[in-house]
Amino acid sequence: MRAALVSIAALSLAACQTVPDAAAPATGLDAAAPSSMQWLYGSGEAAGASIQAWRGIADYAIARSRERRVPQSVSMGIGGAVAEPQSCARGDSWKPLAVVFDVDETVILNQGYEYWATTTGASFSKETWEKWEKTGASYVRPVPGAVTGIRRLREAGITPVFNTNREFSPEGAARAIAAAGLGEAIHRDTLFLRGDDGVNSGDKDGRRALIAERYCVIALAGDNLGDFADVFNDDSRTPPERRELAARGDLAQLWGNGWFVLPNPVYGYSLKGTMGEVFPEGTRWSPETAPADAPAIMNEGN
Amino acid sequence: MRAALVSIAALSLAACQTVPDAAAPATGLDAAAPSSMQWLYGSGEAAGASIQAWRGIADYAIARSRERRVPQSVSMGIGGAVAEPQSCARGDSWKPLAVVFDVDETVILNQGYEYWATTTGASFSKETWEKWEKTGASYVRPVPGAVTGIRRLREAGITPVFNTNREFSPEGAARAIAAAGLGEAIHRDTLFLRGDDGVNSGDKDGRRALIAERYCVIALAGDNLGDFADVFNDDSRTPPERRELAARGDLAQLWGNGWFVLPNPVYGYSLKGTMGEVFPEGTRWSPETAPADAPAIMNEGN
Repeated sequence: MRAALVSIAALSLAACQTVPDAAAPATGLDAAAPSSMQWLYGSGEAAGASIQAWRGIADYAIARSRERRVPQSVSMGIGGAVAEPQSCARGDSWKPLAVVFDVDETVILNQGYEYWATTTGASFSKETWEKWEKTGASYVRPVPGAVTGIRRLREAGITPVFNTNREFSPEGAARAIAAAGLGEAIHRDTLFLRGDDGVNSGDKDGRRALIAERYCVIALAGDNLGDFADVFNDDSRTPPERRELAARGDLAQLWGNGWFVLPNPVYGYSLKGTMGEVFPEGTRWSPETAPADAPAIMNEGN
Repeated sequence: MRAALVSIAALSLAACQTVPDAAAPATGLDAAAPSSMQWLYGSGEAAGASIQAWRGIADYAIARSRERRVPQSVSMGIGGAVAEPQSCARGDSWKPLAVVFDVDETVILNQGYEYWATTTGASFSKETWEKWEKTGASYVRPVPGAVTGIRRLREAGITPVFNTNREFSPEGAARAIAAAGLGEAIHRDTLFLRGDDGVNSGDKDGRRALIAERYCVIALAGDNLGDFADVFNDDSRTPPERRELAARGDLAQLWGNGWFVLPNPVYGYSLKGTMGEVFPEGTRWSPETAPADAPAIMNEGN
């Protein structure tokens, strides 16, 4: 790890010297970008990770679409639980196959909005976000791999359906998707926004249920666990409990196997946790207290 | 995207209030962890992304190992270029199959070191890193998915080979790998450190050449582009040029298809770039200058 020779502290501070705040926004184009944005929007590593995820989505869904038996849906959050796979038979035929995608930081990168937020340091406001939804279409970029991945799905007869928590402009969301080279999205058929299930909530189970009535959903993709099931949105769970729910047991078997995550360390409900939660007992090393020769203790892990 | 309702600025500032520096280290267990560490070490999203990547690695390598024809290596950086796949025939037999892994933030999470760096705000020092290499083994955790992935490879007769830029202690690296539940690593056979090719450099092409003499390398995995080819370490490339090299053309075809990235927004050479580089022309939106109704301009993309 070349990176071993990079100071974590220095990196963090470098990021913070440019972090937006009212006092000192990073207005100059020569200022260092916040490190999470350097990674997601600027690095080859994030581009490679995204292309890899999109290849996995298309390979998985196309392989499923070629199976001969009556297709089944993937497990997904519906009605506050993770529903088992369901038969996709409808009468003596099948529902059309679909993959359900989140939009922001899953199929498109909202670089235009993040540029504005970083350079101004302005706090989030619904007014500005509404304007972004309505006018940002030509300021987005496709997530690397998404254009090829969506094209491969459409060519295989699989419908991309978009389930986003945007709430102000279906037209703007469809324009952004088209502008990124991802094709057409039709409101309430292949594009669902917050509220389209009659509930003004960021929870998506209700919209997943609407989509599953019409389509055989064979895979889900998003940057947030709520893009897969509302159970992950339960705020009574601590971050370690939420991570455990995703990384152990039955649900862990779904990653890369029907559920596909796109990386997003820039914003979202993934960015929670105290030092004590992120660094549990057993991980709190110090050069002063470390034994001269630590024993090789077997950790549990998956 | 529920996350649309989260303030980017607030998130960044929240992270920075806890960023280590000599003046105000985040010593308390109740302080918020830096956001990149909340994501990588604490979130279900990162756990899911890692499990997904590890499933891809094992599925890919095992499928390749079952092909009947004489196996070929994957394309990889050797001698400063990306070498085409090579035949793995040796005499009238084949070289044993291997997958080459970086170690830190690829197979293990260095939470012990990051905890110390964050709570003290100490700058990176070779002395402390050396102590970490030698005494940190029981303070690491496996990357989610790694234990299962490595076990699946070994059960299929594929040898995991570790190529790390750790430089002070092969014994410590082997202890950390074993402590994470990833099994045995033997120095200069299945474990190579900085300098093991006779060159004191973080470049890994020389060590990849040594490994390829002995093994048929069918896949590579790492958190840094240098884990795949030294061509990505050329500092004369700007971050956008480096991202372009990874995300376009022939090399883009390798992600998820022989080359596998683990996400790491916490440290490393991926964290570079000015605002102008991370937000190129065409992505610099402002609510003031945005047209009332932006046209859907087709972006190039992959």
